[in-house]
Amino acid sequence: ALGVASAALANLKPEEQIQYRQAGYSFMSWNMGKIKSNLEGDYNSEQVAAAANAIAAIANSGMGALFGPGTEKDVGNVKTRVKPELFENMEDVGTIAGNFVAAADNLAKVAAGGDEVEVSTAFGELGQACKACHDKYRMKD
Amino acid sequence: ALGVASAALANLKPEEQIQYRQAGYSFMSWNMGKIKSNLEGDYNSEQVAAAANAIAAIANSGMGALFGPGTEKDVGNVKTRVKPELFENMEDVGTIAGNFVAAADNLAKVAAGGDEVEVSTAFGELGQACKACHDKYRMKD
Ligand code: HEC
Ligand code: HEC
Repeated sequence: ALGVASAALANLKPEEQIQYRQAGYSFMSWNMGKIKSNLEGDYNSEQVAAAANAIAAIANSGMGALFGPGTEKDVGNVKTRVKPELFENMEDVGTIAGNFVAAADNLAKVAAGGDEVEVSTAFGELGQACKACHDKYRMKD
Repeated sequence: ALGVASAALANLKPEEQIQYRQAGYSFMSWNMGKIKSNLEGDYNSEQVAAAANAIAAIANSGMGALFGPGTEKDVGNVKTRVKPELFENMEDVGTIAGNFVAAADNLAKVAAGGDEVEVSTAFGELGQACKACHDKYRMKD
């Protein structure tokens, strides 16, 4: 589910891959924050659906291609928080990433429906799917 | 079309807004690069559709909320390349952003259809829509 590096992408430098994957995660986290704020305050169904769509589309964009050779450690002043263990456990990472994509797709689906209770459950499940990867494969700050 | 800052987001610091908008643009540009590579080499319809979806979903995520007060200049060591002129021409920016969202939606639509010639045209149009904003409102490197 992480996707395979396409030949078309073979020319991305390791430091570019690190920056693009951080951008993807960071932008998803902005959208998670918006959904959280909506669940805690006034619920704007359109904003939640747009945020959930952004997360799902990023989740389905093949970010696995951004974990190529040379990206398991810092490159110059481009720092990475990935644990080298990620690259040695690709089967487990694939399972975790598959759960993550499924949870993101599910959140986008229920967000389109507009039922705040369903969104709340799906949002919690997606948060767990992010955390499952971070607990094992992302360094603490 | 840039969207209005929601009350739910009022607690994002200017430096966070700058970083999130850079993340969104950066992740779109990774996906533009993938589509370009596909058009120049072997065309993988599924990869192009996923990339176009990511761009369109990011375009529709309300990034206008990330141009709040205090984000018109560097904040500490968080540098921004936005020109202050952007904040003084919100009507023009709205027009440019509207064209950009329409071009991104169109690319996602034709990419789902899988016709490489249509995708090539729509990709060129989207690139022009990005450039229209950069030419006026983004500083040179
Ligand atoms: C398959 C593993 C995996 C999943 C799933 C995952 N992450 Fe991460 N995340 C990582 C790794 C690895 C890093 C460190 C990336 C680096 O520094 O190179 C990271 C980094 C981040 C960062 C810091 C980005 C930056 O600017 O440096 C944020 C924020 C984040 N993730 C949020 C999320 C959110 C939100 C989700 C779910 C919606 C998510 N992640 C799902 C593995 C994952
Ligand atoms: C409505 C205006 C606007 C549109 C449309 C736009 N951009 Fe930008 N872009 C900006 C601004 C402003 C910045 C500078 C952001 C900053 O540094 O705070 C920027 C920055 C960037 C960056 C640098 C990000 C970084 O990491 O610092 C890239 C890459 C980029 N844009 C690509 C794109 C692509 C690709 C598209 C279209 C698919 C696009 N932009 C559409 C205004 C726009």
